[in-house]
Amino acid sequence: MNTSTSLRVRLPVLVLVFEVVMIILFSLFVTYDDNANARLQNNETNPMENSLYRDYPYFADVQVMIFVGFGCLLAFFRFYGFSGMIFNFLTATFAIQWAIVIQGFFQFYYDGKIHLGVINLLNAEFACAVVLISFGAVIGKTSPVQLLVMALLEIPMFSVVEWAVLKYIRINDAGGSILIHLFACYFGLGVTFVLYRPSLNKGHSKEITSYQSDILSVMGTLFLWVFWPSFNSALTLKGDDQHRAILHTFIGLSSSTITAFALSAVFNKRGKLTMADIQNVTLAGGVTVGASVDMMISPVAAYVLGIMGCTACFFGYRYLTPFMARHMRIQDQCGIHNLHGLTGLISSTAGICGILLATEETYGPSMYQIFSHRAPPAGDPKLLELQKLIPGLKPGLGRSAQEQALYQVAAIFATIAASAVGGLLTGMVIKLPFMASPSDKDCFDDDLFFDVPSDFDRGHQALISYDEKSQMSSIDTKEVSKSV
Amino acid sequence: MNTSTSLRVRLPVLVLVFEVVMIILFSLFVTYDDNANARLQNNETNPMENSLYRDYPYFADVQVMIFVGFGCLLAFFRFYGFSGMIFNFLTATFAIQWAIVIQGFFQFYYDGKIHLGVINLLNAEFACAVVLISFGAVIGKTSPVQLLVMALLEIPMFSVVEWAVLKYIRINDAGGSILIHLFACYFGLGVTFVLYRPSLNKGHSKEITSYQSDILSVMGTLFLWVFWPSFNSALTLKGDDQHRAILHTFIGLSSSTITAFALSAVFNKRGKLTMADIQNVTLAGGVTVGASVDMMISPVAAYVLGIMGCTACFFGYRYLTPFMARHMRIQDQCGIHNLHGLTGLISSTAGICGILLATEETYGPSMYQIFSHRAPPAGDPKLLELQKLIPGLKPGLGRSAQEQALYQVAAIFATIAASAVGGLLTGMVIKLPFMASPSDKDCFDDDLFFDVPSDFDRGHQALISYDEKSQMSSIDTKEVSKSV
Amino acid sequence: MNTSTSLRVRLPVLVLVFEVVMIILFSLFVTYDDNANARLQNNETNPMENSLYRDYPYFADVQVMIFVGFGCLLAFFRFYGFSGMIFNFLTATFAIQWAIVIQGFFQFYYDGKIHLGVINLLNAEFACAVVLISFGAVIGKTSPVQLLVMALLEIPMFSVVEWAVLKYIRINDAGGSILIHLFACYFGLGVTFVLYRPSLNKGHSKEITSYQSDILSVMGTLFLWVFWPSFNSALTLKGDDQHRAILHTFIGLSSSTITAFALSAVFNKRGKLTMADIQNVTLAGGVTVGASVDMMISPVAAYVLGIMGCTACFFGYRYLTPFMARHMRIQDQCGIHNLHGLTGLISSTAGICGILLATEETYGPSMYQIFSHRAPPAGDPKLLELQKLIPGLKPGLGRSAQEQALYQVAAIFATIAASAVGGLLTGMVIKLPFMASPSDKDCFDDDLFFDVPSDFDRGHQALISYDEKSQMSSIDTKEVSKSV
Repeated sequence: MNTSTSLRVRLPVLVLVFEVVMIILFSLFVTYDDNANARLQNNETNPMENSLYRDYPYFADVQVMIFVGFGCLLAFFRFYGFSGMIFNFLTATFAIQWAIVIQGFFQFYYDGKIHLGVINLLNAEFACAVVLISFGAVIGKTSPVQLLVMALLEIPMFSVVEWAVLKYIRINDAGGSILIHLFACYFGLGVTFVLYRPSLNKGHSKEITSYQSDILSVMGTLFLWVFWPSFNSALTLKGDDQHRAILHTFIGLSSSTITAFALSAVFNKRGKLTMADIQNVTLAGGVTVGASVDMMISPVAAYVLGIMGCTACFFGYRYLTPFMARHMRIQDQCGIHNLHGLTGLISSTAGICGILLATEETYGPSMYQIFSHRAPPAGDPKLLELQKLIPGLKPGLGRSAQEQALYQVAAIFATIAASAVGGLLTGMVIKLPFMASPSDKDCFDDDLFFDVPSDFDRGHQALISYDEKSQMSSIDTKEVSKSV
Repeated sequence: MNTSTSLRVRLPVLVLVFEVVMIILFSLFVTYDDNANARLQNNETNPMENSLYRDYPYFADVQVMIFVGFGCLLAFFRFYGFSGMIFNFLTATFAIQWAIVIQGFFQFYYDGKIHLGVINLLNAEFACAVVLISFGAVIGKTSPVQLLVMALLEIPMFSVVEWAVLKYIRINDAGGSILIHLFACYFGLGVTFVLYRPSLNKGHSKEITSYQSDILSVMGTLFLWVFWPSFNSALTLKGDDQHRAILHTFIGLSSSTITAFALSAVFNKRGKLTMADIQNVTLAGGVTVGASVDMMISPVAAYVLGIMGCTACFFGYRYLTPFMARHMRIQDQCGIHNLHGLTGLISSTAGICGILLATEETYGPSMYQIFSHRAPPAGDPKLLELQKLIPGLKPGLGRSAQEQALYQVAAIFATIAASAVGGLLTGMVIKLPFMASPSDKDCFDDDLFFDVPSDFDRGHQALISYDEKSQMSSIDTKEVSKSV
Repeated sequence: MNTSTSLRVRLPVLVLVFEVVMIILFSLFVTYDDNANARLQNNETNPMENSLYRDYPYFADVQVMIFVGFGCLLAFFRFYGFSGMIFNFLTATFAIQWAIVIQGFFQFYYDGKIHLGVINLLNAEFACAVVLISFGAVIGKTSPVQLLVMALLEIPMFSVVEWAVLKYIRINDAGGSILIHLFACYFGLGVTFVLYRPSLNKGHSKEITSYQSDILSVMGTLFLWVFWPSFNSALTLKGDDQHRAILHTFIGLSSSTITAFALSAVFNKRGKLTMADIQNVTLAGGVTVGASVDMMISPVAAYVLGIMGCTACFFGYRYLTPFMARHMRIQDQCGIHNLHGLTGLISSTAGICGILLATEETYGPSMYQIFSHRAPPAGDPKLLELQKLIPGLKPGLGRSAQEQALYQVAAIFATIAASAVGGLLTGMVIKLPFMASPSDKDCFDDDLFFDVPSDFDRGHQALISYDEKSQMSSIDTKEVSKSV
């Protein structure tokens, strides 16, 4: 028994304390959203107009992405499939609960209560996606205790940044390229920088895939791919905005996918396809269209963004990730900097272009809905005029496109800075001794935290044998029986 | 060829007879629901208000749960993955068809016809879930013929109980904790009591998992987890009721999941996680919130219910299931008594508390919709008053909360009694000699009912070798090549 | 390095050229559908009435079918799981993009632009399904380059046929039995006829499944099964028509599934179940109800169609596929002629019966919506009368039922002829030397086009050893350790 990584006390204590805190916070602060409150329904309520029916379909799709999509994708290691899938499950559930409360205080708090509806769950799943992306940087090298503590710290930092950026800087980022992907990426890199393990730079004998784990991981990719349009459009305005978000995401993913196949073949010495490219790089387009996903950028722009994002992501995996591991102490296990960082930066830039190019000619008066900060401020006579065209238009900040572009830039830098610092601090906390951190040798190994079935061991030892005798290109039954 | 378990005659004859009966019943009695009948549409029909659009999204989610969720979850045995997944497929399809007709006679029959719409399919999938839960008690020890006969008997018994309880006792049970989970559980226990196999109490050499089967089973858990809110809310009232049902289910599952991880670590000698806990116990919260899922119980109550259900379920697996197998002749293979019985009882109790605590202050006038039995009876002047506030409120039974609580208790006991007796009788029927029941030795083995691929055999024999030489902790290529 | 099948130049060049063409076409011709165009929204637009909300749920379900369902189903070979799943991914993405443009020119082109909305994506996924079904005939024997070229040629041919049949012949085929399934089937048979490989008629040592690949393939079946009602109903009229389409598909699949189990057991010498039957034949009902899926055929007819389609499909697999391979040079790898051809023919016949039996008594005035070609032509006084009953009814062609039946027959023959010729031509193109076609020996082997993980090799060689020493019934660790 490995006492330093036993979860027997650590994990339950952490969960127990967390649950007590949650029960207190829930009982003091969490009540129902108006759409979920029986008392507020009356004879003028149309049940089918409940916000539930606008939000739940997207929530359900995002659920599949978070639990099944991420879960399978992260199960790509041969001896770490349990851990990848199960730690994702644990961390996700934990992070969503926490986000319901923390994000609730920032975004859904009034009259002394957090008002809970499906829209909170949806927002909480986005916060959870942030944690899971960051998890990608440190997968294989962290205990579940460390992951929960990371979630515990990342969710509040994210919620503060999200709230400050949305409320004070006021940006366009419908698909979350800045707030979700950039934040998650640089936070994760901050954490992994602190958790740097020099010995793993030479590789680890268990840092490999198997035939089944590769297939499982592709299934995760496919679930993410299929529902990504729902992810990118879940929080846009309803109607044509959401419609465009879905179109752009689909187009961006499509062009990204075929580009990934082409690049994978071109840069493989034997002209074959590499599974890791297909598992990750294909998805780059989904992130890249994010920041401008609801704008009138034209379908061809989404197509080109998909290709650009995919290309950046591919070369990131090829050159930047090894470089960062060797020279910058940044071991980015899943390459989140490629799939979320580089693509997020391209996406942010595209978002700024979209803002600068937006005109009333293209958008009609609804421009002031999508770019709400450009709407005239309260009291402006132009506002009244616009409100005739768009009933319910809210007063904005009267910003020009150029001003807004600068705010976007500010938001990008602020998000990156805050997330990197947050990641570094979090890394320091989870490096503390009682966090059940695995030794270098025990990384990428399910056996450390799981009771494994008997066939796990055999695969394991076969591998060691395989490593030891790498000269004999394959020690298989055939050869053995021959020698016998 | 094992003639006593050959399906060559038995299964086709059963299916053929069933199909002939179905064709007769369909042609005599099944017609379209008004929403699916072209003739009833006129110039005042709005196609988008068809009931299809209210029911189908939930139906589709439940489809995934039944076929993919259950299917993968039940494929957890190493040498019984085909059987788990495929018998689930067969039994589910069979049971749904049967339920469409039988339930149809009880719930959708008027003008001499069963009127068929997506709502029937949804109800039939719930009936099917009952059969699949009961299947969990006897998985590995039953032939497909036995399973179909079980479905053939269980569906009518369930339909009668459901109809009697809903029509005469009139209870609140939106998530089906009483009618679905308790019924399924005690029916299954009744069956397995009759099918008791003493020799299996010592365990069976094939009663194990493999690395891949464990992962597959977790995928099933994840699909069930993700869509459980749809399951629990599919049959509630539309609007705020359904909204709450989704919130409560999500919260209950979340708290249940992290509790399951904590308990799994605490009670593992080496402080590791146990896959069986993650596959099953995490889901306990979904059942536990069921009976009160649409009530104004407050979010914190759902959180606490999740923890309570999970705890009961966990200790049930640990202590009660072995106890029942050893001392009560009840071999509950998947532990359905823990995941559906104990949690169902807690849920039922919580439902009663919810009923006793419900006031007009909390619910407003819509209290008389959710607790329809409390609405004033026809003719009561209070009814007219309420109908001004809630147009279309139907006359109720004028029960008090206390009276209703007693009716709930009656329903719980009636359901348990009826299902246990039904299970015993069904067990006796499927124990009859021509049911292709596997011998003790052949349990948990796909080879009995499937043409298996060539790699199945090898895994198999390796296991035997592994068992025989348990002293040599691992017979693997490494050792072999060393000795060579 | 196998230079003749290296993808290093071929695949990237093809993709690059395609992308350049796509960018040009997109920038010249593709703009937003009115429902996705911000400029066309005004103060009378209700965002929730956007066409998005009618189309997207079905699109999302079809996405899962195309990428996950087909992907898993086609991963049924033991050493070809990567290829099955990944080539499906690549081909699907490629085909959908191409269909967006090509189909767009035929169906969504006006004012000099293709107008893009989710409805185009949905149509493009149907076109993509056509390519994937045809892929089934040649899986294991084709390179990704060949598959992309096939998609490149099949999409335009399909689009022309679809447009000509829908616009000029005007048929009823809501579930696509004629246009999708028959076209895909005979196109695929045409291709495989040209690609005939005599040496593979004796079977190939790698043309086998494994325990895991069989399970994966069943998961694909289950995803297809579960969402098939969405597939068959996605393009029907909204309201009762779509409602019936969902009911019929579910019923047809259900009766088909239990029939498949029965037939599988009856025709297995040892009375066991065969996985290939469960993976394929169960789905026959979904195709068989297709052409009449929105008609008032009565539920029992859907039930019977499921049984008939399943039976034809089963015997097709058993007798027709081997016959065609041996005597007609048609190697139909997945048996698409059984699952899509025979069932498609039955379905087409049923559709004609449905047309001949349709009366105003059964359908009411909405008969002229479903059978739009039977509506009176513009100027006919009966049209004005009907338009009072069904506002917005479009003028039709005033055909009689008998006339329409003949048009259906014409469409069936035209589709089969066009697709078979198209398939033959496409086969000739992809047989050209630079298409990276695998040698007979390298068929059914992931190693040819993928970097495979180290455990792939061992499974591989174990198989060879297994084949070589078929006398020793199993070369497993047990025996080896014994001899040692």
